[in-house]
Amino acid sequence: MIQLYTDTSPNGFKATIALEELGLAYTIHHVRIDAGDHRQPAFLALNPHGRIPVITDPDTGITLFESAAILLYLADKTGRLLPAGKKVRWEAIQWLQFHAASVGPILGQRVHFELFEKTPMPIAIARYRRLTAEAFATLDARLSDRRYLAGDDYSIADIATFGWTHIADICGFRFDEYGNLARWHADIAGRPAVQRGIALPAPATGP
Amino acid sequence: MIQLYTDTSPNGFKATIALEELGLAYTIHHVRIDAGDHRQPAFLALNPHGRIPVITDPDTGITLFESAAILLYLADKTGRLLPAGKKVRWEAIQWLQFHAASVGPILGQRVHFELFEKTPMPIAIARYRRLTAEAFATLDARLSDRRYLAGDDYSIADIATFGWTHIADICGFRFDEYGNLARWHADIAGRPAVQRGIALPAPATGP
Repeated sequence: MIQLYTDTSPNGFKATIALEELGLAYTIHHVRIDAGDHRQPAFLALNPHGRIPVITDPDTGITLFESAAILLYLADKTGRLLPAGKKVRWEAIQWLQFHAASVGPILGQRVHFELFEKTPMPIAIARYRRLTAEAFATLDARLSDRRYLAGDDYSIADIATFGWTHIADICGFRFDEYGNLARWHADIAGRPAVQRGIALPAPATGP
Repeated sequence: MIQLYTDTSPNGFKATIALEELGLAYTIHHVRIDAGDHRQPAFLALNPHGRIPVITDPDTGITLFESAAILLYLADKTGRLLPAGKKVRWEAIQWLQFHAASVGPILGQRVHFELFEKTPMPIAIARYRRLTAEAFATLDARLSDRRYLAGDDYSIADIATFGWTHIADICGFRFDEYGNLARWHADIAGRPAVQRGIALPAPATGP
């Protein structure tokens, strides 16, 4: 059975949502970052960078960290959550990568400077608000004429992006003005597997 | 023939290096970011987020942005630069994703605050120096007992990572103290295709 090492976090929710959508059996290990579990040798043996999520799959002997790698692996393992057509499949992978490199890291920096950094740093906050707005606008335009990021098919690109829009919403990083993005977010949020995924290992409550 | 839209940048070099390694015929279009070419409608039609690199492949009709997506696509197209064995293949994809989400974006923020931001922001600089050091240490440990990031096989994980260590080196973000990483960097830098790739569309000269 797949073992998932995770905490309540945007990147962790990507893994729990995907596993719930796929109906795969898995065991959750709660890595309490607040308690420093991610700095323990047992966890660092799974991911030397000390970040969640991590999965191990005894079917293949594979251990994987980085949420985008985990999503690609689960799609490959099951033949689901990535469209079959070549062109639309690469669109899904592109938007997964857009999230992984150009959206998630930017939202992460915004959370840091806006909510956790004790010294007020208006220049840094303005920078990450601007970059967040740019990313939201790009997603909004993409969703102007399609239901999901890759078109008609719900995919790991949506799951990855939702992991962070869910947290953006909780943190008060509003995206109501991006009507297509807001519609897409509500659509994804309504999926039963997503509702289960964002409650594991515990619901996010904001900073 | 593949069309590559790029500028002199760490993410652009990932694409030129991969195309040079694979010996694929391609045409370079120099997107001069300094001149605002990335904000022109013709370029935004290729990548609505306005970032390089982008490729179009007339063989498949596929247009792709995000360097990690391009690297995965080129490896898939050619059956090269990703190991064949299932386990080691996923290791390569994991380290590609580690670069894309956890190394490249952090180095990008360090470049911004250390070299481009006019207001001195020692707290932000310290943050990105610390996160860079953590990423370098993780890569260094990974390379302590293997030649390349995925083991014996040079892969797109190495190409992605090198795109940024090349720029880190030019920016004076030293990694000499990470002996395995420095050895790996010199090894990759010595490859003729890499030397060609980092000169396209023009060599980087630093800030």
